[in-house]
Amino acid sequence: MPTNAPLSGLYRPSLSLLTDLYQLTMAYGYWRKGMQDREAVFHLYFRKPPFAGGYAICAGLTYAVDWLEQLRFSEEDLAYLGALRGRKGNALFDPAFLDYLRDLRFTCDVDAIAEGTVVFANEPLIRVRGPLLQAQLIETALLTLVNFQTLIATKAARIREAVGPTDQILEFGLRRAQGFDGGLSATRAAYLGGADGTSNVLAGQQFGIPVRGTHAHSWVMAFEGEEEAFDAYADAFPDDSVFLVDTYDTLEGVRNAIRVAQRLRATGHELGGIRLDSGDLTYLSREARRLLDEAGFPQVRIVASNDLDEQLVTSLKLEGARIDTWGIGTKLVTAYDQPALGGVYKLAALQRADGSGWDYTVKISEQLAKTSIPGILQVRRYLGENGKPVADMLYNTAEELPADLTIVDPMDPTRRRPVKSEQYRELLEPVFRQGKLVADLPTLQESRERVHQELASFDPSIRRFLNPHVYPVGLEAGLNSFRTQLILEKRAVRPA
Amino acid sequence: MPTNAPLSGLYRPSLSLLTDLYQLTMAYGYWRKGMQDREAVFHLYFRKPPFAGGYAICAGLTYAVDWLEQLRFSEEDLAYLGALRGRKGNALFDPAFLDYLRDLRFTCDVDAIAEGTVVFANEPLIRVRGPLLQAQLIETALLTLVNFQTLIATKAARIREAVGPTDQILEFGLRRAQGFDGGLSATRAAYLGGADGTSNVLAGQQFGIPVRGTHAHSWVMAFEGEEEAFDAYADAFPDDSVFLVDTYDTLEGVRNAIRVAQRLRATGHELGGIRLDSGDLTYLSREARRLLDEAGFPQVRIVASNDLDEQLVTSLKLEGARIDTWGIGTKLVTAYDQPALGGVYKLAALQRADGSGWDYTVKISEQLAKTSIPGILQVRRYLGENGKPVADMLYNTAEELPADLTIVDPMDPTRRRPVKSEQYRELLEPVFRQGKLVADLPTLQESRERVHQELASFDPSIRRFLNPHVYPVGLEAGLNSFRTQLILEKRAVRPA
Repeated sequence: MPTNAPLSGLYRPSLSLLTDLYQLTMAYGYWRKGMQDREAVFHLYFRKPPFAGGYAICAGLTYAVDWLEQLRFSEEDLAYLGALRGRKGNALFDPAFLDYLRDLRFTCDVDAIAEGTVVFANEPLIRVRGPLLQAQLIETALLTLVNFQTLIATKAARIREAVGPTDQILEFGLRRAQGFDGGLSATRAAYLGGADGTSNVLAGQQFGIPVRGTHAHSWVMAFEGEEEAFDAYADAFPDDSVFLVDTYDTLEGVRNAIRVAQRLRATGHELGGIRLDSGDLTYLSREARRLLDEAGFPQVRIVASNDLDEQLVTSLKLEGARIDTWGIGTKLVTAYDQPALGGVYKLAALQRADGSGWDYTVKISEQLAKTSIPGILQVRRYLGENGKPVADMLYNTAEELPADLTIVDPMDPTRRRPVKSEQYRELLEPVFRQGKLVADLPTLQESRERVHQELASFDPSIRRFLNPHVYPVGLEAGLNSFRTQLILEKRAVRPA
Repeated sequence: MPTNAPLSGLYRPSLSLLTDLYQLTMAYGYWRKGMQDREAVFHLYFRKPPFAGGYAICAGLTYAVDWLEQLRFSEEDLAYLGALRGRKGNALFDPAFLDYLRDLRFTCDVDAIAEGTVVFANEPLIRVRGPLLQAQLIETALLTLVNFQTLIATKAARIREAVGPTDQILEFGLRRAQGFDGGLSATRAAYLGGADGTSNVLAGQQFGIPVRGTHAHSWVMAFEGEEEAFDAYADAFPDDSVFLVDTYDTLEGVRNAIRVAQRLRATGHELGGIRLDSGDLTYLSREARRLLDEAGFPQVRIVASNDLDEQLVTSLKLEGARIDTWGIGTKLVTAYDQPALGGVYKLAALQRADGSGWDYTVKISEQLAKTSIPGILQVRRYLGENGKPVADMLYNTAEELPADLTIVDPMDPTRRRPVKSEQYRELLEPVFRQGKLVADLPTLQESRERVHQELASFDPSIRRFLNPHVYPVGLEAGLNSFRTQLILEKRAVRPA
């Protein structure tokens, strides 16, 4: 039933139809062929870190778990699917299939890398193992939820890199976000990745993220003069005022702010900060800092905003801008310079029909970078003597590992390195077993702290914006040989 | 209460906190000053059409109406706001203010341009008139909802322009969208702007948009061979199959598809189409068309996808690609080349405290393009003798219009044109009166048809991708003079 209430319509008991139709048509096809319960393994991964960077921050698992936990087709969902028609007016799905969907319960095993972990290209962020129909069905939702969270958490980590460890980052992007949840979920990921607070009140309520705010130009315009407007705001928030000073003339605005700050101090209060939102932020912040310091307000913070991103922040810092708090909006919540992460979800193994073992699968492509990796993969992160990561190895957990391990670059098999370290951790951890949640997911706060620790544990060169160091991620040599052989077999079916 | 269930958490009775904190701090400030009921006028508009284009498709009003209709602070909302603390640990808001919010009911007048209308820079898409506190409070939600819908509807209209009137556009973007609602609401806007269908099942259910799907590469990989995979799919959907042919080798895939199509025909069914998802789409589509035609399947459609947008589609068309259906994903649902529309919401008039009339307000800026327009504006679209739009005029409804009308370019006041036409329509139409919905909003389908009619009514030159014609939008001469005078007054307060 189409609705003209697009927001209210979301208050539904189920988001199970948050998927592409082809997941359901394939489910129907597998069900008709009796293949629904063949055990399959899928990996969710990306092929290139976003923003031409050297890493990504893994995020979105909490969303994915929430979605998987609610996965159940409601009567309303089934009625909708039952009403779908093909070209000839025939029902698209057999009613018996809808009965099957009604009773369907998620029974897969899911292993995943914890939110906040530093990850690289080709590493499975999520591995799903279970009945083919189910493992396929969940593709779209997992991708939607993980792609975007990972994208924004990574963007926020880059902005944190630019502003440095002590400055504050406030995320202000809701009004330019991609829909209301584009805003809400971006705020979550931005906080996870390194922002300190947000203007988004719903995100504050929902996720416990600190909320911050100043006032708009319209506040100043609603009063006779700017100083009167600041006075009125200070009256409401004597200890929590940040004045926006650029409605008419920025440095005049700073002088007005100082006068109000003096009156506040006389009554035992202190101005929190001023905000610059236009003009030459380097010049204006230096002048504002000078005026504030000279007037005896060295503690008043300078907040700056105006289409900032990590590149602009870096440039302002280099020029000596005196900014303490960075208001970052559009460029953060939409990941403006690369608004989508191209994560994919690929079939990597399928039990034979006779149950005699695994058939491993690759999706081949003209480009080797787009060819998938077969197996039931785990990501092993080796640590050097100082405990810092030195290389990641992807290997097939269904095969015995040899005693002498070698890691091979999948893009250039002549690049190999023997594994010397004994110290490692396995990144994929159990999340669901037979459809039951077995992980105790960290809180958003804990994941946020993990980002900080993780990034500090890597060599800083991976965090460089321009030409970052390529951290070594390779295939265990046996897996690499097997993959090569499998690709050659698949290619052999076609004439040269 | 922070939640680790980010999706389920949305099933709440209210999205009233979908706002920036500063809307609430300003509300508190106005309330403390007794200014909450001063009558104010705000306009929502953008300063530049997206994608360096010549127009935008207005969209999002249905969302805005839905949000305004639910605007009411729940006890849960108020408890959250009551728990917010300032720097010194003080409650940010006075409990009496929370009581005020509890009883707050939306009582503004809202006028808006219908979804699907062709609009231009500086034209108010929404005008809000009512108590200052309320009119300010709704800023963020209106911007979030209207910016994104307008952005994506415009992108879809451009893609429609590129594919031409008869090809089909299927929107496939959910997996790369910005959050689940980034996907859901993008699908709605894409359909409004010109897409014919979507892969997004939730959008199909919620908005009545036709859903379409094929199958994934993994479907093919789950069978021994490609032909067997196509057979299995055809068995499930004998009249509704579209085969993805590029899992191993595209033209071999087409030959396999033809063999299955022949078997289908022998049993009274017809293959719907094939899909190309990689490689040189021009070459492959021409070859596929030739193979299909030679085999007696001229009606089998060729669907193509692979990071397409209006520029790539145009180029493929110019090269003679034989594609009937365009699967457009990431580039459409994220508006990849410009993922945010910079819509703003500016105070334009405020009743004097003594009720003696309007104070008009402008936000001045170093750049004239960023200086707002005062007044209680209406947009009048003049039509030529053939009924086609010739120019739009913004005027202040609170002032009498002179008999001889002149339209002035606000960016270059030496560019003026007298109004000769008698024929016009007023674009802003009543939506709310004193908080009560008075408009009968069109359905999504009706808005979608409006886009088509609107675009056809304008000179095609505004739809050009490169250097589009600039359709004339100006201020009524009296309004322009008044604005100039107001800017000079505001600037006069500062020393040169």
